[in-house]
Amino acid sequence: MPATEQTIEDQRAKAGFNFREDIAPGLVLEMPLNSILHSSKSEFQQIDVIDSYFGRTLVTDGKTQSAQFDEFAYHETLVHPAICTYVHRTGKAPKTVFIGGGGELATAREVLRHPGVERVVMVDLDGAVVDVCVKYLPEWGGEAVKSDPRLELTIGDAYAYLLDTKETFDIVIMDISDPIEAGPGIMLYTRELYQHVASRMPSNGVFVTQAGIADAVPPPHVDAGDRDTTCFGPIRNTLSEVFDVVLPFTQSIPSFGSDWGFVMAFSPPKEESKDSPILPISIVDSLIEKNIKGGADSLKMYDGITHQRMFHLTKAVRKQLAIDKRVMTKDNPVFMY
Amino acid sequence: MPATEQTIEDQRAKAGFNFREDIAPGLVLEMPLNSILHSSKSEFQQIDVIDSYFGRTLVTDGKTQSAQFDEFAYHETLVHPAICTYVHRTGKAPKTVFIGGGGELATAREVLRHPGVERVVMVDLDGAVVDVCVKYLPEWGGEAVKSDPRLELTIGDAYAYLLDTKETFDIVIMDISDPIEAGPGIMLYTRELYQHVASRMPSNGVFVTQAGIADAVPPPHVDAGDRDTTCFGPIRNTLSEVFDVVLPFTQSIPSFGSDWGFVMAFSPPKEESKDSPILPISIVDSLIEKNIKGGADSLKMYDGITHQRMFHLTKAVRKQLAIDKRVMTKDNPVFMY
Amino acid sequence: MPATEQTIEDQRAKAGFNFREDIAPGLVLEMPLNSILHSSKSEFQQIDVIDSYFGRTLVTDGKTQSAQFDEFAYHETLVHPAICTYVHRTGKAPKTVFIGGGGELATAREVLRHPGVERVVMVDLDGAVVDVCVKYLPEWGGEAVKSDPRLELTIGDAYAYLLDTKETFDIVIMDISDPIEAGPGIMLYTRELYQHVASRMPSNGVFVTQAGIADAVPPPHVDAGDRDTTCFGPIRNTLSEVFDVVLPFTQSIPSFGSDWGFVMAFSPPKEESKDSPILPISIVDSLIEKNIKGGADSLKMYDGITHQRMFHLTKAVRKQLAIDKRVMTKDNPVFMY
Amino acid sequence: MPATEQTIEDQRAKAGFNFREDIAPGLVLEMPLNSILHSSKSEFQQIDVIDSYFGRTLVTDGKTQSAQFDEFAYHETLVHPAICTYVHRTGKAPKTVFIGGGGELATAREVLRHPGVERVVMVDLDGAVVDVCVKYLPEWGGEAVKSDPRLELTIGDAYAYLLDTKETFDIVIMDISDPIEAGPGIMLYTRELYQHVASRMPSNGVFVTQAGIADAVPPPHVDAGDRDTTCFGPIRNTLSEVFDVVLPFTQSIPSFGSDWGFVMAFSPPKEESKDSPILPISIVDSLIEKNIKGGADSLKMYDGITHQRMFHLTKAVRKQLAIDKRVMTKDNPVFMY
Repeated sequence: MPATEQTIEDQRAKAGFNFREDIAPGLVLEMPLNSILHSSKSEFQQIDVIDSYFGRTLVTDGKTQSAQFDEFAYHETLVHPAICTYVHRTGKAPKTVFIGGGGELATAREVLRHPGVERVVMVDLDGAVVDVCVKYLPEWGGEAVKSDPRLELTIGDAYAYLLDTKETFDIVIMDISDPIEAGPGIMLYTRELYQHVASRMPSNGVFVTQAGIADAVPPPHVDAGDRDTTCFGPIRNTLSEVFDVVLPFTQSIPSFGSDWGFVMAFSPPKEESKDSPILPISIVDSLIEKNIKGGADSLKMYDGITHQRMFHLTKAVRKQLAIDKRVMTKDNPVFMY
Repeated sequence: MPATEQTIEDQRAKAGFNFREDIAPGLVLEMPLNSILHSSKSEFQQIDVIDSYFGRTLVTDGKTQSAQFDEFAYHETLVHPAICTYVHRTGKAPKTVFIGGGGELATAREVLRHPGVERVVMVDLDGAVVDVCVKYLPEWGGEAVKSDPRLELTIGDAYAYLLDTKETFDIVIMDISDPIEAGPGIMLYTRELYQHVASRMPSNGVFVTQAGIADAVPPPHVDAGDRDTTCFGPIRNTLSEVFDVVLPFTQSIPSFGSDWGFVMAFSPPKEESKDSPILPISIVDSLIEKNIKGGADSLKMYDGITHQRMFHLTKAVRKQLAIDKRVMTKDNPVFMY
Repeated sequence: MPATEQTIEDQRAKAGFNFREDIAPGLVLEMPLNSILHSSKSEFQQIDVIDSYFGRTLVTDGKTQSAQFDEFAYHETLVHPAICTYVHRTGKAPKTVFIGGGGELATAREVLRHPGVERVVMVDLDGAVVDVCVKYLPEWGGEAVKSDPRLELTIGDAYAYLLDTKETFDIVIMDISDPIEAGPGIMLYTRELYQHVASRMPSNGVFVTQAGIADAVPPPHVDAGDRDTTCFGPIRNTLSEVFDVVLPFTQSIPSFGSDWGFVMAFSPPKEESKDSPILPISIVDSLIEKNIKGGADSLKMYDGITHQRMFHLTKAVRKQLAIDKRVMTKDNPVFMY
Repeated sequence: MPATEQTIEDQRAKAGFNFREDIAPGLVLEMPLNSILHSSKSEFQQIDVIDSYFGRTLVTDGKTQSAQFDEFAYHETLVHPAICTYVHRTGKAPKTVFIGGGGELATAREVLRHPGVERVVMVDLDGAVVDVCVKYLPEWGGEAVKSDPRLELTIGDAYAYLLDTKETFDIVIMDISDPIEAGPGIMLYTRELYQHVASRMPSNGVFVTQAGIADAVPPPHVDAGDRDTTCFGPIRNTLSEVFDVVLPFTQSIPSFGSDWGFVMAFSPPKEESKDSPILPISIVDSLIEKNIKGGADSLKMYDGITHQRMFHLTKAVRKQLAIDKRVMTKDNPVFMY
């Protein structure tokens, strides 16, 4: 397939077909549109699968969701640090995992690499995305993940599901769209939801969420609170009002056009220290070998060294986080661009 | 000025003026062109200073050289890890520093923060760039740096200068354009030049160079050696044939549209180990406090934590480096896009 | 200057500076931005003078107003058919001319080529545009036109001026922006204003206005009344409710990205026929020779043959006009894109 | 279909999919890419059918060939003036017609509207284009035209065919790509080919060819012969060395981004005058009624009034043609951009 795609790409550059995406207000990333593999309009959004600079790419409402050449960077970063942290702190594998969103199935794919996981509940709003990904993006997980007996897939509102469920989850992963004004997920980024989630997790249960753009060098207008397009700070702040330990981390995702933020949060039992030093290289590598099927060979991005990079934020980002005091509540949500 | 620039930017978005740059073959970054502060054609290149998404920006032959909002990330990363490593290994400050290129003066600005430095020899091909930067980009260094008595600025060919000089330098910094076929700097990226430079440095003298794009997730065609647009691997490989210790590191530079590579190299005296573990946070912070005028407050990007991030490369980048065997010699140069 | 501009253009193509303009909803024209000669924000609009594909170009609020290489096509088409028609019908030169808008001064420049004209009253809202054009676009008219003793230039609201004046004008020329919702000129496109203007003109006095985009092949959605971006039909229809003879005509203006519409209107005295056949080639050429200073050599676009082209509309445009029934009144204005 | 397309277009604008085409060196037209209906690579070129601003559009090697919303303007202009001129001069319908190129079948569609035509020989290099157009662009002609018993379609080199054939043709129509350096059609634009074609036509037989971009206001660099991107003048000049009467004409084709040139040529018998005044409105309309199946109702663009517009060129274009002395021969071809 790469060979063919290369050829198509060369043709397409000639044809002048492009995909343009605003990656920040005023900043556009443009790349060749080699082909449109699928287009449809679901109840919730426009869904396109294209072949472009970063390989096959899922695009919803014009926004890149994940791309063939670097989706692993996003999904491994979202999943494994959180689970490894849980294993490290509790000495056991998590048994139950909740995924909010995750329609591409790749988050579930990474979770299911952990043999100790017995049950994964995934709740995504848009069943059409799941179907499209199974068909056009099988490497993301596809039928193999969808039909894994450990996965329970529910099409519906993750917020309502979480409020309603009586179940508890060792790990809760939020793989949902950024909080934008018109978006369905805005409630999933509030202190109230985080409080509820905390109540549905055991001690040392780990919550993790994607947290939007987190450039290594935030532009100065972000300092000014003007046209702020980030939610990294607010998510960290809001989680800090609910959990005792809150760890922001980042990973460069080229198809997103920048570094990307994630936040992990948990509350140690009273008797444990709230200190949570960055896990050393050797411990992470050992956790991977013991807890992930296939060990290090299964993963393309995550290992002990990469863990250091992810959790050691640049001075510029740390300064930016330090001055950001915004908290997201039901009554005062924070909207991104 | 920020307030005014904000206003101009809003007007310009309306006016439809844009700056488009190919950051890789097929990948375009487009941003508002708020104003063109300067335009001229020197003997060597088209020189423009614009105000754009990343603030005031130096553009030569259509390529972003550095931008107001993140030039510090590039220049601090190029300079301080190398000098701190020298100080840490030798126990003393470097006295003499050579800068190849560096016309923006910001590399010299960072070098001159080290009070122990007695003499900086900077050789840039294009005096017009220096003049333009002094006038339009004073924060990069400007007249203050240019007229610093420790700086000896020569307009000319750094390659010829290095071959000719009898002087030795504790630190050699290459702040030059990527090796492209038509570029003047291609000879500055060869094994032969590195060998000569090594002969002009004391034991434990540190060489450092920028090394082009170094995405956290290199696209797969790079694996295939096809349309390879990187020089990160070849520079590391070539330096490894000359120096005993070679350390690649990266930093995200948003205005360059990706992570950026750097390589540091040195040869410890025979009696010293060739091991060179990544300097711990506390040691870097201590080196900064002792060796940089103003200490940590002087720097916006570099500190002990950021040092961890820079030198812990992602698994994907390490894998990419591991398979890249190219070496750059006079007879077999490696050309980038 | 052309030689230099050519050189700058080549440099700029390399630099990636562009000017993008939406010429219709979804249709973008992009060209190299060679230089920005002037930028300011007046009380009413953003004003830029750029050097681009069509030479020096006045851009207000991101919309091309006129460009060096084809402004003559627009201004000659706006002015001379109307005045020649007046001379042909009345057997005498017009003495008084009113120009609504016209800040670039080129409309006045064309009017003043008619030696019989004794008085030109020009009322433009934005004095800043006039000043900028005098300084940066002298070929449009500049100081020579501005200081012509026959020209009386008033900075103010043309609508208010017309309602207030007791004067009559042999020729009334509207050289104003398209009627957009937020625009100041919307009242100048209403039946009520046209009725008032008619009352301030002698029998056979000629009214002419620019009338927006008028593509030779209107896209089908225009048929459907959906997303209609034209005002050509509504202007013709509205004038038809006020004047006995209404003549739509078009001219290709490459810097506007399409054919452009104009409408001329007048009411012959009762005793004269209301037939108004398109003036034959020889008559137009003769009128030009007799009534324009310098004769045919003064004009780059208008002559008898071009007159045939302008007034013979394509079948597609005529069909489009035939089905367009919209009329513009104070209470029911028509807004363009 | 329009309703659906409208919907898809709205979705696509959101998705950021675009089609960019250089319509002249430095001038880009960009529009939404609603969908890619077909993509393939034939022996000769990349072939794409897209749905875009101008409806379904055939794009080969990145160049728009014709578009749903205005293909009729191009094809009616290419065919009917030539045939009507033949009928007017000879008093009879043409019986045999040769089409060089014409793979979209729409040129044949227009020719076949003339019931007197008994035989149409069409020779196009690329059978894949014909197949794609039959399938995706049926309104262009499709199966109905392809299977018309009067049409003889040959896939092959029109140049070789013309040199080889012993047949004569009343009408010869060249519907081929512009003469670009790499293009296959360069020989079809030479004096030598025109001489041969003339020898294969009866007295008063009419030759017509598309002739590339012909802006109403050519940019000044065209005057300078520098970066000339037109072939309108050279085609007219070359035909003038072979035929007695040569008539350039133009039509605005919005999807081509400008006015487009055509040239008609013929040689009256010795006893007839070489004067060839532009056919009056009434004669053209009468020729249409008598010689085209369905009469005026069959045509969307061509009629007597439109004929006036097409053949009355603007003063600027006439001036440009007057100074262009280039002639195209085998040894000295003229290449377009």
